Amino acid sequence: MTRKICVVITARASYSRIKTVLTAIKKHPSLTLQLVVSGSALSEKYGAVIKQIRSDEFEIAASFSNVMDGSNPVDSVKTVVLALSDLSTFFSHSKPDIVITIADRFETSATALSAAFMNIPLVHIQGGEITGNIDDKVRNCITALADYHFVSTENAAKRVISMGAKEENIFVTGCPSIDLVSEVFYQPKQDFNPLTEYGGVGPSFDISNGYLVVMQHPVTNEYHFSGDQTLQTLKAIEQLEIPTFWFWPNSDPGTEGVSKMIRTYREDHPDVNIHFFKSIEPVHFLKLLKNSLCLIGNSSVGIRECASLGVPVVNIGSRQKGRERGRNVIDVPYHCDAILNATKRQITHGHYQPDPIYGNGNAAMHITEILTNISLNTHM
Amino acid sequence: MTRKICVVITARASYSRIKTVLTAIKKHPSLTLQLVVSGSALSEKYGAVIKQIRSDEFEIAASFSNVMDGSNPVDSVKTVVLALSDLSTFFSHSKPDIVITIADRFETSATALSAAFMNIPLVHIQGGEITGNIDDKVRNCITALADYHFVSTENAAKRVISMGAKEENIFVTGCPSIDLVSEVFYQPKQDFNPLTEYGGVGPSFDISNGYLVVMQHPVTNEYHFSGDQTLQTLKAIEQLEIPTFWFWPNSDPGTEGVSKMIRTYREDHPDVNIHFFKSIEPVHFLKLLKNSLCLIGNSSVGIRECASLGVPVVNIGSRQKGRERGRNVIDVPYHCDAILNATKRQITHGHYQPDPIYGNGNAAMHITEILTNISLNTHM
Amino acid sequence: MTRKICVVITARASYSRIKTVLTAIKKHPSLTLQLVVSGSALSEKYGAVIKQIRSDEFEIAASFSNVMDGSNPVDSVKTVVLALSDLSTFFSHSKPDIVITIADRFETSATALSAAFMNIPLVHIQGGEITGNIDDKVRNCITALADYHFVSTENAAKRVISMGAKEENIFVTGCPSIDLVSEVFYQPKQDFNPLTEYGGVGPSFDISNGYLVVMQHPVTNEYHFSGDQTLQTLKAIEQLEIPTFWFWPNSDPGTEGVSKMIRTYREDHPDVNIHFFKSIEPVHFLKLLKNSLCLIGNSSVGIRECASLGVPVVNIGSRQKGRERGRNVIDVPYHCDAILNATKRQITHGHYQPDPIYGNGNAAMHITEILTNISLNTHM
Amino acid sequence: MTRKICVVITARASYSRIKTVLTAIKKHPSLTLQLVVSGSALSEKYGAVIKQIRSDEFEIAASFSNVMDGSNPVDSVKTVVLALSDLSTFFSHSKPDIVITIADRFETSATALSAAFMNIPLVHIQGGEITGNIDDKVRNCITALADYHFVSTENAAKRVISMGAKEENIFVTGCPSIDLVSEVFYQPKQDFNPLTEYGGVGPSFDISNGYLVVMQHPVTNEYHFSGDQTLQTLKAIEQLEIPTFWFWPNSDPGTEGVSKMIRTYREDHPDVNIHFFKSIEPVHFLKLLKNSLCLIGNSSVGIRECASLGVPVVNIGSRQKGRERGRNVIDVPYHCDAILNATKRQITHGHYQPDPIYGNGNAAMHITEILTNISLNTHM
Repeated sequence: MTRKICVVITARASYSRIKTVLTAIKKHPSLTLQLVVSGSALSEKYGAVIKQIRSDEFEIAASFSNVMDGSNPVDSVKTVVLALSDLSTFFSHSKPDIVITIADRFETSATALSAAFMNIPLVHIQGGEITGNIDDKVRNCITALADYHFVSTENAAKRVISMGAKEENIFVTGCPSIDLVSEVFYQPKQDFNPLTEYGGVGPSFDISNGYLVVMQHPVTNEYHFSGDQTLQTLKAIEQLEIPTFWFWPNSDPGTEGVSKMIRTYREDHPDVNIHFFKSIEPVHFLKLLKNSLCLIGNSSVGIRECASLGVPVVNIGSRQKGRERGRNVIDVPYHCDAILNATKRQITHGHYQPDPIYGNGNAAMHITEILTNISLNTHM
Repeated sequence: MTRKICVVITARASYSRIKTVLTAIKKHPSLTLQLVVSGSALSEKYGAVIKQIRSDEFEIAASFSNVMDGSNPVDSVKTVVLALSDLSTFFSHSKPDIVITIADRFETSATALSAAFMNIPLVHIQGGEITGNIDDKVRNCITALADYHFVSTENAAKRVISMGAKEENIFVTGCPSIDLVSEVFYQPKQDFNPLTEYGGVGPSFDISNGYLVVMQHPVTNEYHFSGDQTLQTLKAIEQLEIPTFWFWPNSDPGTEGVSKMIRTYREDHPDVNIHFFKSIEPVHFLKLLKNSLCLIGNSSVGIRECASLGVPVVNIGSRQKGRERGRNVIDVPYHCDAILNATKRQITHGHYQPDPIYGNGNAAMHITEILTNISLNTHM
Repeated sequence: MTRKICVVITARASYSRIKTVLTAIKKHPSLTLQLVVSGSALSEKYGAVIKQIRSDEFEIAASFSNVMDGSNPVDSVKTVVLALSDLSTFFSHSKPDIVITIADRFETSATALSAAFMNIPLVHIQGGEITGNIDDKVRNCITALADYHFVSTENAAKRVISMGAKEENIFVTGCPSIDLVSEVFYQPKQDFNPLTEYGGVGPSFDISNGYLVVMQHPVTNEYHFSGDQTLQTLKAIEQLEIPTFWFWPNSDPGTEGVSKMIRTYREDHPDVNIHFFKSIEPVHFLKLLKNSLCLIGNSSVGIRECASLGVPVVNIGSRQKGRERGRNVIDVPYHCDAILNATKRQITHGHYQPDPIYGNGNAAMHITEILTNISLNTHM
Repeated sequence: MTRKICVVITARASYSRIKTVLTAIKKHPSLTLQLVVSGSALSEKYGAVIKQIRSDEFEIAASFSNVMDGSNPVDSVKTVVLALSDLSTFFSHSKPDIVITIADRFETSATALSAAFMNIPLVHIQGGEITGNIDDKVRNCITALADYHFVSTENAAKRVISMGAKEENIFVTGCPSIDLVSEVFYQPKQDFNPLTEYGGVGPSFDISNGYLVVMQHPVTNEYHFSGDQTLQTLKAIEQLEIPTFWFWPNSDPGTEGVSKMIRTYREDHPDVNIHFFKSIEPVHFLKLLKNSLCLIGNSSVGIRECASLGVPVVNIGSRQKGRERGRNVIDVPYHCDAILNATKRQITHGHYQPDPIYGNGNAAMHITEILTNISLNTHM
C-alpha cells in the first residue's frame, strides 16, 4: 500500500519551492500525492497560482478559499479560522498518512495545528531558519508542532534540535527550491518573452540592454509603513531609468497599502519604466532572475535562490535579517538613495559565483526517500 | 493610564493556577483586568468553573462557548476554530495591551495565535516544561508565539532560551498555583464537608479514617485507550476499599471513553466507595489534597501542587513523564496491580517534606510587577 | 450522464423519514446519491444514527461534526456556523446537481443557505406544514430558499404557493416516512427483542401485557422549562405502572435540562419501569410503535406516522400545535395528571383506523421520478 | 429602562436607507442604539462606509470583518459563516431587546438567523417586495425568520401576510430611505463639488451642462456575465459623450468581473468621460441624483429613491424586475444600443413628477414609535 502524502500549498512562493518534490512524489511508486491548494494561491489578486498548478498537471484533491478582502491583522486570523475548519474536515475524510507544510507564512499554522491535533505525522520543510521578524514566530511554532523536519542547512538543523526536536527526526535535505535553480543555472536561456507571455500591466520596453527585478513584500509587524516602504523603491527605480519587472506582493497585512501606493504612483508617473506581474511560471521566473542585472526588494528569493544563481541582490530592510546569506547580497534600509546607490554598485559588479548555502539540487529525491521510510507512529 | 491585561481562561485547571495573579492584577493600580472565559470552563459537563469565577467576584469581559459534543480529534480543531474566531474579534474591539495565556491545553493555541497575529504582546505562563506528550507540542508552539515567558523553574528558563527566546524576556516567577498551595500548607484545616458542599454523584461515606483522591485524564495521543486506562484505576480503588473522591476529567479527546467506562462501572458496581465531583473551589481542592492519604492519577497536580504540599502521589502512565518531580511521586503503568501496590506503599509511608520545585509562593506579586514594566513594543 | 443528488441528513428523525428515498435514488439508473451526514446524526449522545446508515449500506460521501457540548441558544448558531463552512466547501468540490434538505430542524438552514447562495437547485421535503413554534420559522425560511417543494399534503402545497413559490415547482408527493409505515402496517410482527437487541439503560421487563412508548423533545422557545416538562411525563409513567420504552431527545436547546432530569429521576427512583434507548433501526421503531398501547410525548411521529399506523397518541404541549392531525391524537398540557388520564383513555380505546393524511406509501418512487425530470436551471 | 435596539449595517446602501431611523432611535428617550457594522461596510474596496458612520457621530458597538477577497459563490457563504459566528457571540454578550435587519443582501441572513435562533425579537425592514432574482429568496427567508415586519407598501404587507406572518405584526411604515429623499427634494441645491470632495479616480470635467450617474451591480445568478454586462454600459456612456459619475458596485459574486472590466476599459480608453466613486455621503448622493440628467444601471435606487425625486431612470436587466415602479423608469436589456437610446429619450423628456410609492417621508418617526411598543415576547 502506498503512503498518502498531503501537501498544502497556500501561496505562489510555496508552490515554487515545493514543485520538484510534488513531481517526485507523484512519480514515486510507494507514495500518493494529495495536493491541497488554499489561501492566496486561489486569489486572482495574487496571481491565482492554482491555475498554473492545474496546467502543470497536478491533480488537486481540494481547494479552500479563505483569503479576506481586508488586510487588518484580524483578517489574517479569520483566514486561519476558515483554513483550520476546512483542513480539519478534509483530513478527517482523506486520512493522509503524512502532512507536509512549507516555510513560515502565517496561514500555514492552520495546516500544522490541524495535523498535530489530529495525530497525523507532520513534516515541516524549511524550519530552523531565522529571518528576524514575525515569520520567525510562525516558523518556530510550526517546528514545535512538527514531527519531522526537512531543513535546508546544518545551522537550521542545530536550531531545530535546540528547540527540542529529536535529532533522528531532523534531515538536512537542502531546500527543494534549489533543485529548480540548479537546472536553470545550467540552462539559463530566456526562451520566452515575459511581456507577451504574461501580460501584466504597465509599458512594454526593450530589455536587450538589461533589466531589473523587484519583489517587495509588506512586513507583518511594520504593516502601517508598507505604502511608504514601497514608495522608496519606486523612486529609486524611477531614477535608475532601467526597465524593471515588478512582482505583486503577498497577501500579508499591509498589502493594501502597497497596492494603493503602486496605483497612485502609476497614475502620477504614467511613463515610469515598470511592468507589473502577478506571477509567472517558476522556471520562467528563475530565468528572468538569472538574466537580470539585479534583484531589489525584501523577498527570501534574494537570499536563497539568488545565492545559487549568483544574481546580485539589493536586500531592503529587516524582513530577511536573520537569514544566512552569500556574498551576492547588499543590505540597505528602506530609503530611496540607499537603494539607488546599492543597485548601481551591484550592476557595476555584475553576477557572482554561485554559493550552495541552501542546497545542492537533489532535495526532492532525498525527501521522497525519507517519506517512504519514516515511522508513521509519531508517539513512540 | 493603566495597562489592560487580558487573561484567557479555558479550563478549570487554568483558573486554579492563575487565580492569585487575577486577584493581584485586579488590585494593582496600574493594571486593568480583562478576563475572558472560554472552552470547558463554560461547560456543565466539566464543572462550569465560570460560575465559581463569578462567585469569586471577578468581572468577566467576555465568554465564548466552543466545546464540541464529540471527542474525536477533529472536534478539538473545531473548538480552536470557534475560539480563534471569537478571540480575534474580541481583541479587535477590546484592544488589550498584553494577553496572558497559561500552560499547554490545545485550545490555548487559539489565544496565542490571535495575539501573535494581531501584534499584541503575548505572555506565556508555564512554558519550558516537559511532559513527554502532545502537550509538549502545544506548549512549545505557544512559547514560539509568545513575547514574554513567565516560567516556573530555572530548567524551564533554559529550555525557553534554547528555543530562541531572548533572555531578557524570560522571567523565573515560579508557578502562581504554588501561591495558593503555600497558604493552604500553613492552614490545612479541612473546614468544609465536600459531600454536602459540592453534591456530586456516588455514595456518602465517612472520611475520618482517611480517603484517597483520583484525578485521571485521557491522554491525547492514547485516546483510544482512555476507557481501559480508567478501568485499571477503578479496579485498584475497589480493592483498596478506602473512600475515594474522584474528579471528572478534562474535555480532551478520549473523555467520552472515560465517561462511558465510569458510568458502566457504576451500574455494575453500585456499592463501590467512590464519590465523583466535577470541580470544587481551588482552596477547598488543595485542602482536600493536603488531608488525603494519597493522590492517584496522571494530573500535573500530583507533580506540582503535591510537591509543595508533601502529599504522596501515585502517578500513572506517560502523561507527566518529562516533568521535574519530587520524592513524593511513585510512577506506575496503567495496570490495576501496580496502582494498588504503589498506593499501599504511599499510604504506609505517609506525607513527605514539602519540596519548592515549582515556586515559593510569591509568583503573583512578581508577575504583576513585571506586567507593569515590560515594553509593549514587541518588535524591537 | 446521471444527476448527482446530494441529501444532507442531520438527525436520526431525518434519516427515518428519507430512508426509502435514499434507497430509490441509489437504485435509479439516472441518479447518483451523494449522502452527507452531519449534526446530531454523528453524536453518540443522540444514538449516532450514522452507524446505522453505514450498516444499511449507504455510502457516505462526507460527514461533518458540528454539535456543541452546550445547549444554550448561542450553541445552536455555532453548529450552523460549522455546518455552513463544511457544506459550502463540500458543494464547491462535489458539485451536486440537486441538494435535498428535509423538514425543519434548525441546522438544516445551513444546507439550504449553502445551496441557495451557491446556485445549486434546492429541494425541500416537508415544507408548508405548521407546527406553531420556532420550527415554523426554520421551515418557512427553507421554503423561501428552495427551488422545488415536495410536500406531504394539499394544504401544505397551498401554503407554499402563498409564500411565493411557483406552482409548477411544487409536488404533493406525500411524506416518504409513510412509505415505511405502509410496509410495517401490513407486516407488524415484532420479530425482535428491543431489550436484547439495543441495550439501552434501565430495567428489563416483560412486555407481553403491553407497553408504552415516550418521545419527548425540549421545545426551542421553552427550553428553560425542559427539565420540568420531562418531570411531568416521568411522574405520569410512574403512576401508570406499565413498562415503557423512552427515546432520548433531539440535540435542541434544552436537551441538557432533559438529560439532567432523567438522570436525577433515575437515581431517586431506581425501580421505575422505564427503559431508555438512544435510537433503534427505523423498521424496528415503527414495529415497536405499532405494537404499543400508546405513544406519549411531543414528537411529530405521533401526528404523522401514528396516523397511518392507527396508534393512539397522547400529544403534550405546543410543539405540534399547528399540524394537521387524525382522530388518534389527544392533546394535553405538560401536566402529570392530564398525561395520566389521557393515556388511560387511549389505552381503553385501543388502536384506531389508519388515516392517510401524510401520504399513501409511494412517495419515494414519486420523488425519484421528479428528480430525474426537473430543470437544473433554477433562474429562468 | 430603555430598550436596546441592535441595528446591523452590512453595506453602504443599508446605511443610506436606515440613517434617519438610526438618528431617531439615538434621540428617543426610551430606546438605546446598539449599532453593528459588518460586511462590505468595512471594506476599503467598497468605500468603507464605516468611516462615514463614525463621522456622522454614531457610536459603533461592534464591527465585524468578513468580506472575502474572492467572489465565487462559496465566498459568499464564508462571509455568512464569519458573520454568524461574530453576531451570535455579540448577541450573547450585548443581549439586545430587538434586532433590526434591512432589506435583502445575502449576508443579512446571518443577522436574521442569529436573532431567530437566539430568541431575540427580529424586525425586518423592506420585506414583502419582489425583485425577481436571488434577492427574493433572501428577502423571503428573512421574512420567515422575522417577528415584526416594517414594510414600504401595502402590496408588500399583503405578501408578508400570505407568507404566514401575523397581521398584527406587520406595519406599513414606508421606507426610511424616502425620509432623506423628501428633505433633498425640497432642498436640492448641489452645495458641494463631488470631484474635489470625494476624489475618486478618472478625469475631472465640467458638469455645468449636465451629467449622468451610473450604478450597476453584478447580478448574483448571472455573475459569470458581470464583466460583459458592465461593458455594454461603458460603451453606451462613451457614445453619449456626457460627463458621468459611476459608483463602484456591491461586494456580490461577480464583482471581480466588473472591476476587471472597468480597469481594462480605462486602460484602453483613457479619455472616456467617466469619474469613479466608491461612495459618497447619503445626502450628497441624493443631491447628485436630483441634479443629474438621468440614472443608468440596475440599482434599486432607480426604482425607489428616484420615484420620489422624479429623476429619469434607465433600468437595465432583470435585477429589479419584480419591484413596483413609477413612470420615471424605462427598462432595457444589457445591450449598448438599448441603453444609449433609452438614455437619450430620458434626457429629452427631462425630470418627472415625484411619485410616493415607497413612503411619504416620516418612516423613521413611525418606526421608533412602534419599537417602543411592540411586545418583546415573540412566542405568545
